[in-house]
Amino acid sequence: MSGTCRAVVIPAPDEPVQVVEIPIPDLEPGAAILKTVYSEVCGTDVHLWRGRLSGVPYPLIPGHVSVGRIDAMNGVIRDLAGAPFREGDLVTFLDVHETCNACYQCLVNKQTTRCPSRKVYGVTYGAKDGPLGGWSELIWMKPGVKLIRIPAGLEPETFIGGGCGLATSVHAVERAGIRLGESVAVLGVGPVGQSAIALAGLSGAAEVIAIGAPDDRLAFARRMGATATLSLDVSHEERLERVRRLTGGRGVDVVIEAAGSPAAVAQALDLVRDGGRVVVVGQYTDHGTVPINPHSQINRKHVEIRGCWGSDYSHFYRAVELAARFQDRIPWRDMVTGRFGLDQAGDALHQVEGRQLLKALIVP
Amino acid sequence: MSGTCRAVVIPAPDEPVQVVEIPIPDLEPGAAILKTVYSEVCGTDVHLWRGRLSGVPYPLIPGHVSVGRIDAMNGVIRDLAGAPFREGDLVTFLDVHETCNACYQCLVNKQTTRCPSRKVYGVTYGAKDGPLGGWSELIWMKPGVKLIRIPAGLEPETFIGGGCGLATSVHAVERAGIRLGESVAVLGVGPVGQSAIALAGLSGAAEVIAIGAPDDRLAFARRMGATATLSLDVSHEERLERVRRLTGGRGVDVVIEAAGSPAAVAQALDLVRDGGRVVVVGQYTDHGTVPINPHSQINRKHVEIRGCWGSDYSHFYRAVELAARFQDRIPWRDMVTGRFGLDQAGDALHQVEGRQLLKALIVP
Amino acid sequence: MSGTCRAVVIPAPDEPVQVVEIPIPDLEPGAAILKTVYSEVCGTDVHLWRGRLSGVPYPLIPGHVSVGRIDAMNGVIRDLAGAPFREGDLVTFLDVHETCNACYQCLVNKQTTRCPSRKVYGVTYGAKDGPLGGWSELIWMKPGVKLIRIPAGLEPETFIGGGCGLATSVHAVERAGIRLGESVAVLGVGPVGQSAIALAGLSGAAEVIAIGAPDDRLAFARRMGATATLSLDVSHEERLERVRRLTGGRGVDVVIEAAGSPAAVAQALDLVRDGGRVVVVGQYTDHGTVPINPHSQINRKHVEIRGCWGSDYSHFYRAVELAARFQDRIPWRDMVTGRFGLDQAGDALHQVEGRQLLKALIVP
Amino acid sequence: MSGTCRAVVIPAPDEPVQVVEIPIPDLEPGAAILKTVYSEVCGTDVHLWRGRLSGVPYPLIPGHVSVGRIDAMNGVIRDLAGAPFREGDLVTFLDVHETCNACYQCLVNKQTTRCPSRKVYGVTYGAKDGPLGGWSELIWMKPGVKLIRIPAGLEPETFIGGGCGLATSVHAVERAGIRLGESVAVLGVGPVGQSAIALAGLSGAAEVIAIGAPDDRLAFARRMGATATLSLDVSHEERLERVRRLTGGRGVDVVIEAAGSPAAVAQALDLVRDGGRVVVVGQYTDHGTVPINPHSQINRKHVEIRGCWGSDYSHFYRAVELAARFQDRIPWRDMVTGRFGLDQAGDALHQVEGRQLLKALIVP
Repeated sequence: MSGTCRAVVIPAPDEPVQVVEIPIPDLEPGAAILKTVYSEVCGTDVHLWRGRLSGVPYPLIPGHVSVGRIDAMNGVIRDLAGAPFREGDLVTFLDVHETCNACYQCLVNKQTTRCPSRKVYGVTYGAKDGPLGGWSELIWMKPGVKLIRIPAGLEPETFIGGGCGLATSVHAVERAGIRLGESVAVLGVGPVGQSAIALAGLSGAAEVIAIGAPDDRLAFARRMGATATLSLDVSHEERLERVRRLTGGRGVDVVIEAAGSPAAVAQALDLVRDGGRVVVVGQYTDHGTVPINPHSQINRKHVEIRGCWGSDYSHFYRAVELAARFQDRIPWRDMVTGRFGLDQAGDALHQVEGRQLLKALIVP
Repeated sequence: MSGTCRAVVIPAPDEPVQVVEIPIPDLEPGAAILKTVYSEVCGTDVHLWRGRLSGVPYPLIPGHVSVGRIDAMNGVIRDLAGAPFREGDLVTFLDVHETCNACYQCLVNKQTTRCPSRKVYGVTYGAKDGPLGGWSELIWMKPGVKLIRIPAGLEPETFIGGGCGLATSVHAVERAGIRLGESVAVLGVGPVGQSAIALAGLSGAAEVIAIGAPDDRLAFARRMGATATLSLDVSHEERLERVRRLTGGRGVDVVIEAAGSPAAVAQALDLVRDGGRVVVVGQYTDHGTVPINPHSQINRKHVEIRGCWGSDYSHFYRAVELAARFQDRIPWRDMVTGRFGLDQAGDALHQVEGRQLLKALIVP
Repeated sequence: MSGTCRAVVIPAPDEPVQVVEIPIPDLEPGAAILKTVYSEVCGTDVHLWRGRLSGVPYPLIPGHVSVGRIDAMNGVIRDLAGAPFREGDLVTFLDVHETCNACYQCLVNKQTTRCPSRKVYGVTYGAKDGPLGGWSELIWMKPGVKLIRIPAGLEPETFIGGGCGLATSVHAVERAGIRLGESVAVLGVGPVGQSAIALAGLSGAAEVIAIGAPDDRLAFARRMGATATLSLDVSHEERLERVRRLTGGRGVDVVIEAAGSPAAVAQALDLVRDGGRVVVVGQYTDHGTVPINPHSQINRKHVEIRGCWGSDYSHFYRAVELAARFQDRIPWRDMVTGRFGLDQAGDALHQVEGRQLLKALIVP
Repeated sequence: MSGTCRAVVIPAPDEPVQVVEIPIPDLEPGAAILKTVYSEVCGTDVHLWRGRLSGVPYPLIPGHVSVGRIDAMNGVIRDLAGAPFREGDLVTFLDVHETCNACYQCLVNKQTTRCPSRKVYGVTYGAKDGPLGGWSELIWMKPGVKLIRIPAGLEPETFIGGGCGLATSVHAVERAGIRLGESVAVLGVGPVGQSAIALAGLSGAAEVIAIGAPDDRLAFARRMGATATLSLDVSHEERLERVRRLTGGRGVDVVIEAAGSPAAVAQALDLVRDGGRVVVVGQYTDHGTVPINPHSQINRKHVEIRGCWGSDYSHFYRAVELAARFQDRIPWRDMVTGRFGLDQAGDALHQVEGRQLLKALIVP
């Protein structure tokens, strides 16, 4: 393999994206090349474009969650069960890799999401490193990148419809420890919130209350399994009152914060019942502080607040399995409301930023 | 039994305490009268005196944790193992009672500390209700109050030296889930902090870092088992740097906040390692809000924050057992630095408020 | 209220049941009388009839899970939320009561199901104690018995169709800690097994494999949510092979043993994957021992085996909520395959013992 | 580096050990050679000699836990904190390696001890593979083997005195989840049992009851922290009675089975209180089955039984830390009761098998 492929590049923060030619690397043993089928436009990509993350090596090819077909491999690469991949196989891959398996977080805390050596496709690799983002005709699977087979019967549109937000919400719901029959509020109805709503319902929550805006996203939340929706058009106090009425006056057992604004964390602490749990998963970028009253919102409430950062292989693996198993019940596929070629990637970013689209795909 | 007993009363917030005569009730079946041996002056008593808690039925007899001898009983009262109590037995009792065993918190959440019907000796009973606080010659054990035997060999001074703070810290350490060999920072070196330091060490923490003031309390923390102490005389940033040096650069596995100021909660989130746990137990009264950055202090750190309210029978039971078992290693007895008769109770409050004493006892 | 009511009595082990007149007690404060709508014929009732439980005070009125209407009350009785019950209200009640709230299990271990003072309607009360079993026109609610409202919209047939097995399986599934996407095998397709199948599916299990007999119960298991069924007509080895094929060669993440034969526990340990969990809930009576290899079935497999005894208020409360919430998806109502008047109770026992019926009701 | 080193070899099951010359390999990048200071004679080595483990590639150099000095390295090898090792550094290493980081157990279950690809020094490597056991002058650290620094101030005799049993018991105690003030019985007073006794005490157990034989090992258990000892000279029934007397009639909160005989697992289930936990860690080899009564020993007792297999990096890491931190309180060093040169290795095996020694070292 040689030559180049076309890829979208963010040259620098706030600059218009461009389509450029990227050299295709020689494949070292254990490496592969994917022909991109779909790559996702995630909220993170807007953050990257706007320069809200630190340590990003611009120019950058965005796209951390993608589906592709194996175009070339050097040597044998196997799946979790030991079965070899073949050229033409439809796969996704864990964007996070090079977790070192040698540090405290990898070996003692067993929480690779906090490994300081981790590298992320489309985020911490730059365009100079090669086609290591999904908004590209081809994606280079470096040795050790974990490929995950899209099983027969799972439409790639369904998996990518869930995408990064689905894997993230698998992690958030795992942290939440939802028990059968509990009530759950999800703050935020973007891609993470929508999948969290679906997974809360699949986990047996009796009530799943979606809180967010705009109205069409709340309507979609109903399709994902929300049993009630509350709009940001009414005040927090009114929403709090509504949640109490829905929960016998107690507040919800679990809140999953997937909204992104610091204020949502304080609101989550009001909405949760005494002794309940709040998972904070929406604060991916730094939007400053929020005043918290540790007496009335933490200590006296006897709550647990659980931060949730990133996702690891297990969450991706589960995301693929859940998409395959529950695609009949959960309309992940319909979360995709826009498809863009490489040349339209700038439009995609603008529309996702403007919340005109719930989920956009890049289709190279 | 009839007549009256002498008791200390807080007439109203900020007013000087008085010694008054309180009628001794007739004992209904299941009730008892204790002759007070010691009653504790807890930080809560200062809060009560200063009017910082809501819903307190002044005038009030303070004293929620006490040791006494059974002076009279109506009928048979049994301990946990079914053995009957006898007159003259040395006991303490769970100050919280009338948890209803009929509400969501009691029956479903199994967290009686949040039962809305709970009553507390020395806090939510008023002097008009009878001798239901420990700063009194006699204490009326209403039917259903849980008596706990002070075992032979446990000096009452040792148990009351730990007192309320010991039971509270049993709960906090349970919430912390300290694992053998972990590092723990305790913020605050008052009675709760001192016992938390001791219990963290007994739980197998390899490092127990006490952070607080003044210096004599830090010195006492060493005696309780602290392996390092950090004074509030140096800045939070410097303390953070010191904690990192003591923990391989990572921060501590667990922080127990027993300081009381909202700022301590934010500091705790800085001190804890990624993926660690923060127990918030010191925020018993409302001192307002603190700015928290949910991105850098919760989400990206992947921490757990666990509020810890009050204590239930299991914590009191364990407190007595631990005091008896570990009295040779932990100088709970030496936490008592002042003893006061009923007539000196006002002095006790002043000196505890002024932090001149680590722990004061009322000896009627 | 006075006079008598008709009730079914087991005079002694293995003797034919009789219908007798039982005196109706005067209601002490806090007591009530229910007019029985349905009472369940549980497998336990067959055990009671056959004399397989120790300490049973024959003659006995069976029937521990029932639905009735409040016929009379002395004083105000309230539900969990504090709302008073009214005459005519449709309710069920927690058959286990008089848990002492004073022993180690109640107060320290917080596991009232092991309280030695507990009393059970239809099991540990005898006919001489009054109408304290459900196979009776009226049931006496002694003070402190926990009534639970059957909410509007929940057909009593649905709740009683689940019945005792539903509450028990709520407990078992809680012990199992099923995580979204896991695979679960349920051994046994009697009432406990059928509800465990339903609740495993509602908890988000991706695979729910029902193992048991006869075939019509396996067919019903499909309706309850089983994704695969395995008959006892094939050997354990063949079933093991099938389970492995369904789980990528690993075995299931969770086994819930609801079969009752000791051999099922050993089989469960074969079926579970390394590091998985086995809940043992089916061994309510003593059928002797089973050989277990602690090397290959416990230690090397790194499994967890969790015994699960009885159910407490929280499980009953959740059972009612889940029946109401998921009655459209789970055909608990159709588990009832026989209805019997008091005079036909003997037939009911024979047919349940012979496995001719999945669930029988007594309709007085 | 070239030439050979002397090493002890088990030629085949039940054959006398021999000292042979083993070629020293060329060091590939990331590899190192240790000069052995001490290697342990573990009970596993007796099993290996007697042929009780399957899949062992005889001839074999035994010795899976060792301490050595770095003699040579190819390239830079770093510790957990990123600090490079230097020649002459005193280290131990995780005997288990080549866990694949690609299978279900490594990536989804996060339990590398069950990875099917794992390799073990001194157990699954044969002498033909090179000096990959500790009973050798030199030990070859293949690339990726995890070296762990013996910190300054930790005598190597202390660490190796704990040795394999210390790491195993770190894992067992972690599985046990001992809470402050609980009672623990440890079955077995060999190296795993002795360290489990020490760690239970360090974890804050109020009672640590050692059960085993012979008497000198029980006496040593007292030095490790046992608060009571029970000899196998008295019957199980008598020991059960004694344990109940020590625990208020309830049985212990936790049993750690480190005895090895299947009967010990059944006894553990008798000794534990209702709702307690039993960790099964002693069944490393297959000694057949034991009859268990699932009704009375599992279901009605509501216990948890937790298998515990092997140990991973985190347990080794913790073992080194705990040995360093608590060497003043725990006489791990005195567990070493025999030292043998390579030429005396056969004597070491005979004496360990005969229980004449608690712990023997090979000192090449």
